[in-house]
Amino acid sequence: MSDTSLLNQLGVVKRQIVRADKAAVDKLARFGAATIHEAMGRVGLMKPYMRPVYPGARMCGTAVTILMQPGDNWMLHVAAEQLQPGDVAVAACTTDNDDGFFGDLLATSFRARGALGLVIDGGVRDVNDLAAMDFPVFGRAVHSKGTVKATLGSVNIPVVCAGALVHPGDVVIADVDGVVVVPAARAMEVANAAEKRESLEADKRARLAAGVRGLDMYQMREPLEKAGLRYID
Amino acid sequence: MSDTSLLNQLGVVKRQIVRADKAAVDKLARFGAATIHEAMGRVGLMKPYMRPVYPGARMCGTAVTILMQPGDNWMLHVAAEQLQPGDVAVAACTTDNDDGFFGDLLATSFRARGALGLVIDGGVRDVNDLAAMDFPVFGRAVHSKGTVKATLGSVNIPVVCAGALVHPGDVVIADVDGVVVVPAARAMEVANAAEKRESLEADKRARLAAGVRGLDMYQMREPLEKAGLRYID
Amino acid sequence: MSDTSLLNQLGVVKRQIVRADKAAVDKLARFGAATIHEAMGRVGLMKPYMRPVYPGARMCGTAVTILMQPGDNWMLHVAAEQLQPGDVAVAACTTDNDDGFFGDLLATSFRARGALGLVIDGGVRDVNDLAAMDFPVFGRAVHSKGTVKATLGSVNIPVVCAGALVHPGDVVIADVDGVVVVPAARAMEVANAAEKRESLEADKRARLAAGVRGLDMYQMREPLEKAGLRYID
Amino acid sequence: MSDTSLLNQLGVVKRQIVRADKAAVDKLARFGAATIHEAMGRVGLMKPYMRPVYPGARMCGTAVTILMQPGDNWMLHVAAEQLQPGDVAVAACTTDNDDGFFGDLLATSFRARGALGLVIDGGVRDVNDLAAMDFPVFGRAVHSKGTVKATLGSVNIPVVCAGALVHPGDVVIADVDGVVVVPAARAMEVANAAEKRESLEADKRARLAAGVRGLDMYQMREPLEKAGLRYID
Amino acid sequence: MSDTSLLNQLGVVKRQIVRADKAAVDKLARFGAATIHEAMGRVGLMKPYMRPVYPGARMCGTAVTILMQPGDNWMLHVAAEQLQPGDVAVAACTTDNDDGFFGDLLATSFRARGALGLVIDGGVRDVNDLAAMDFPVFGRAVHSKGTVKATLGSVNIPVVCAGALVHPGDVVIADVDGVVVVPAARAMEVANAAEKRESLEADKRARLAAGVRGLDMYQMREPLEKAGLRYID
Amino acid sequence: MSDTSLLNQLGVVKRQIVRADKAAVDKLARFGAATIHEAMGRVGLMKPYMRPVYPGARMCGTAVTILMQPGDNWMLHVAAEQLQPGDVAVAACTTDNDDGFFGDLLATSFRARGALGLVIDGGVRDVNDLAAMDFPVFGRAVHSKGTVKATLGSVNIPVVCAGALVHPGDVVIADVDGVVVVPAARAMEVANAAEKRESLEADKRARLAAGVRGLDMYQMREPLEKAGLRYID
Repeated sequence: MSDTSLLNQLGVVKRQIVRADKAAVDKLARFGAATIHEAMGRVGLMKPYMRPVYPGARMCGTAVTILMQPGDNWMLHVAAEQLQPGDVAVAACTTDNDDGFFGDLLATSFRARGALGLVIDGGVRDVNDLAAMDFPVFGRAVHSKGTVKATLGSVNIPVVCAGALVHPGDVVIADVDGVVVVPAARAMEVANAAEKRESLEADKRARLAAGVRGLDMYQMREPLEKAGLRYID
Repeated sequence: MSDTSLLNQLGVVKRQIVRADKAAVDKLARFGAATIHEAMGRVGLMKPYMRPVYPGARMCGTAVTILMQPGDNWMLHVAAEQLQPGDVAVAACTTDNDDGFFGDLLATSFRARGALGLVIDGGVRDVNDLAAMDFPVFGRAVHSKGTVKATLGSVNIPVVCAGALVHPGDVVIADVDGVVVVPAARAMEVANAAEKRESLEADKRARLAAGVRGLDMYQMREPLEKAGLRYID
Repeated sequence: MSDTSLLNQLGVVKRQIVRADKAAVDKLARFGAATIHEAMGRVGLMKPYMRPVYPGARMCGTAVTILMQPGDNWMLHVAAEQLQPGDVAVAACTTDNDDGFFGDLLATSFRARGALGLVIDGGVRDVNDLAAMDFPVFGRAVHSKGTVKATLGSVNIPVVCAGALVHPGDVVIADVDGVVVVPAARAMEVANAAEKRESLEADKRARLAAGVRGLDMYQMREPLEKAGLRYID
Repeated sequence: MSDTSLLNQLGVVKRQIVRADKAAVDKLARFGAATIHEAMGRVGLMKPYMRPVYPGARMCGTAVTILMQPGDNWMLHVAAEQLQPGDVAVAACTTDNDDGFFGDLLATSFRARGALGLVIDGGVRDVNDLAAMDFPVFGRAVHSKGTVKATLGSVNIPVVCAGALVHPGDVVIADVDGVVVVPAARAMEVANAAEKRESLEADKRARLAAGVRGLDMYQMREPLEKAGLRYID
Repeated sequence: MSDTSLLNQLGVVKRQIVRADKAAVDKLARFGAATIHEAMGRVGLMKPYMRPVYPGARMCGTAVTILMQPGDNWMLHVAAEQLQPGDVAVAACTTDNDDGFFGDLLATSFRARGALGLVIDGGVRDVNDLAAMDFPVFGRAVHSKGTVKATLGSVNIPVVCAGALVHPGDVVIADVDGVVVVPAARAMEVANAAEKRESLEADKRARLAAGVRGLDMYQMREPLEKAGLRYID
Repeated sequence: MSDTSLLNQLGVVKRQIVRADKAAVDKLARFGAATIHEAMGRVGLMKPYMRPVYPGARMCGTAVTILMQPGDNWMLHVAAEQLQPGDVAVAACTTDNDDGFFGDLLATSFRARGALGLVIDGGVRDVNDLAAMDFPVFGRAVHSKGTVKATLGSVNIPVVCAGALVHPGDVVIADVDGVVVVPAARAMEVANAAEKRESLEADKRARLAAGVRGLDMYQMREPLEKAGLRYID
């Protein structure tokens, strides 16, 4: 895993980043955020206040990270140039702020670079346009509030976004269940674990649908009794 | 109405509960949460943070209650076995917690028992699967965060869920307007009152649509004048 | 702009108000809330907790303002009579309150008067009916909680609604991006500025889609360098 | 424990209530909210947003319960007459509301009746006066906002206050750590358990202060190892 | 009352403002925020999230208003020069923002101009220094987060601060019960009403302390009976 | 700076950690959180919801980090053994949770090891005891809610606590203005920068107190004019 020596450095754009292996990203794209979170060992999630701004938004790509200042989207413009096909922009802010940092013009710009979507610990606007473009965005608010371009943040440094540490190049998977971050170095391992978990779940689902009781399937009766559970009438 | 001697008891599963009369439940199912809340005398609502996890979710059934511990969904598995056709699982937690206690496997399990849906003062995940199954869930958050199975709560004791007291067997009606709880003993009385209210509303709606002014229809002009309302130009 | 001598006066209904020029309102109706906020100079927005209660809700009209008391919707009934075709009801409350002040009967009444919709710093209910009627409502919560008719507020006085000052007759534009208030006296000026902004954006969008970089199009490279931005590899 | 047939009934004042045994109340008064919560089996707490309005506020008494309407403190006046020496007023509201329901005049009135303090799921004001009187109040907000006297609630019915079910006559203990409710019927049992717990804690405290490690004192090393804890260097 | 033609104008400093009459301000200073709010007719309050940053903070003075941008305290420096003895700085922000806009250096600067304190819909820092200086500040958060000086706001325009409209020159009274704004033109009228209210309260307090029941003193028994209140045993 | 390969690993206790240089820690202890945040380049802060649980709490020490599960304080017991004189325990949680993870017994245990205090993204209890011991704690809530010891987290891995990345051995400074984290490798550099900043501030304070205007001292008049600020009368 990459180091964190650039953590919180302001005024820096790192141009060369190591993106997660493409095959691993493609494999992770087959699974949902919840499955991948479990496959990683129940970690890596952003806070649940991060929501898709239109129904059906979904994405899986490699992170280009951004650290913004409140009420200021200058660094999103700087970041656009660093985006490559398959990337997801991940924008943190130095403080909680719901302003509308992002709208349809930036989305057009990001898409022209091949970016797949945006995860932003801030607000966005032009939601109807984003939905019409099917440019997926996950954020903390929808807000028309305009922003300035006056103060430096950074691009492609490690950031804490909505409670999760994200390094540039990490894999970010976002869907209706939330946003999960897979460190680049663990991408294939986690993808394989997700695949295994999903195949096990298919079998469990079939048995449960057929009427097998979870208490039996998961062998919970004995531990429940040991824990002291009492059945009364 | 049932007593509350089991309130807050941990480690107990009550197997025999008295469910509200089926005819009353069927009748209540014809009305919305807002109408039933009014018909009860403007009480019985859960807090408005309880929202359907997919559009169109709706249900009316008899409560099987659950008291969970934070980050722990063991009792949902225990509750599955106590569910009967027509039941709604109502899960409270000993503290505020947004973890993803419930997903598609438990939904499969609950449905196999005939349950109609879930009301949970906690988070859920696998929202796309729940929508595809049309298994209605009302909760406080969508969150992928996984939970453990380590600490006892209870099943079928009285619980306070999202601000409302729920006894096992009570009728729970949930739709886009919220979640309302009708004590089992009052189910038919409230269903009748809801029916009456709805028929009165149809008439009012027609008159208002025809241009009758509410101030006249509700005879508000005199009380407004008495209260001192002044009209100025 | 109108004076504020009636600000916060309770127990008053002003019958004669000066509505914004119809041509300006019609022109403003062609633009979204975000565009108009920008065209006004980045001001005039309500707080982002104000959300449409069903997807696709949108409106632009002249404000009839209401000051309500918590848990009491009496003044909405009083306001109905003051509504004229093309108006939008804008309801503030003397304190934060999520109760269900408004439902389908009041919507029927408002529509019968020609009103276009409601903006309310409070809760609403009967959301399915509102969607079926396509009567747009923007509010802070969906809540079945019923309200009383017992205490006076006012109609057509200046109010602070969700953080924005609204005078009766001002233009209110609401869509998925939020709610913005344009003072009546500035309506045509702002509409013209919005038109100009939108035409400029079309050009920018085309250039960005064609691959022009925002850093170049907006001539940001020099100011970024002056501000000290460092590119590293 | 008392039944809940009066739960949520509006417009009722119950004059005869069964207060918890005085000896048990006196004994419970010796312990803090956290100790009593543990002694009850980790239940009975109100939500942690309930805070003392001045430093050092503390009380233990028998509940006279109140159900208020938002923005309306009429029932506090009605409740005053039902208070007896040793009582604590416990006021719930039919919806979330931060208005200033209670101030120094009501405190004077309550104290004249012998009441020990107030727990209110609402706002209060005149905080300096309350501190000067040393009349302890625990609430959800400090707010000058005045309230009306227009709509009925109830007195001495079971209420859900800040997430906890409270029956009239229950014991309410409030201090800096929170507010806990002990059902009247369990008062002495819980007082005894609290006493026992506190004596055990004194011993533990001494041993820990002397340098005994918690992992040893609580015999946690084996279960930690079984759970799979790995020590690395 | 002054007009609102400058409302929301950015980039403007108004040097000449009409401050409320000094005698009225001095008289208002004798009363608390709750009393003045009642004396005004139960209006004029800021939201209750505005809290003193140290115990005992209290002030009453004439408003110099400020509109800030998020994360930017430039306008506080500009405002310092406009402050006169007896003024209170009232800082609103174009969006919700908890950054630490204000600390001991600005407090030193404000005090050197004769300002009495600050009301800020934002965060502050150096709280120990502010307490040591006894420079009262009421705000929405304590936060060390530093701010920039890059984007224009305004000074001495009408602002909406924490939900209240404030014109420059209005009287602002802040204490532990909250922050209330009295329009300059109403200052003496409200001061007189507050005086009257307080003298009435002294009498009421004495009678209540002597055991007179509020239900009798306020003659509530008859209206309660009319409203349908039932006493049961 | 240390690597993050252990980030989010569950079930691990790292015994050997590299603590920041003692001289640097001692020097940092002379400055407040706000000063250090500025000296670092305006980064490193935890969210402002982290508050001291009693007035006057303050600390500066080297981090022993903890990752807890919701409602479970097992890892705090495990961490106690890893604490050394001069350490500060920094406890993150895998999800938002306000339970009372920490009280006077753990404080006794931590102090016996020489720990200086606790920063916890969770709730605490026994606040009076903590104040009496003067054992400083900064947390997100005060809550009596008890926790279990059932599920593994980790000790001395990198954690995200209240929005800030903390590595074991980093310096944590907490006071009334907030909590700031200084990476171990930057400790002396930041301490020196803080010292420099503080000496500059003393001079500025004196000049401002003497009546020098900030606009002149900071040479803001020209940039304000360039930005377009207009003075009107």
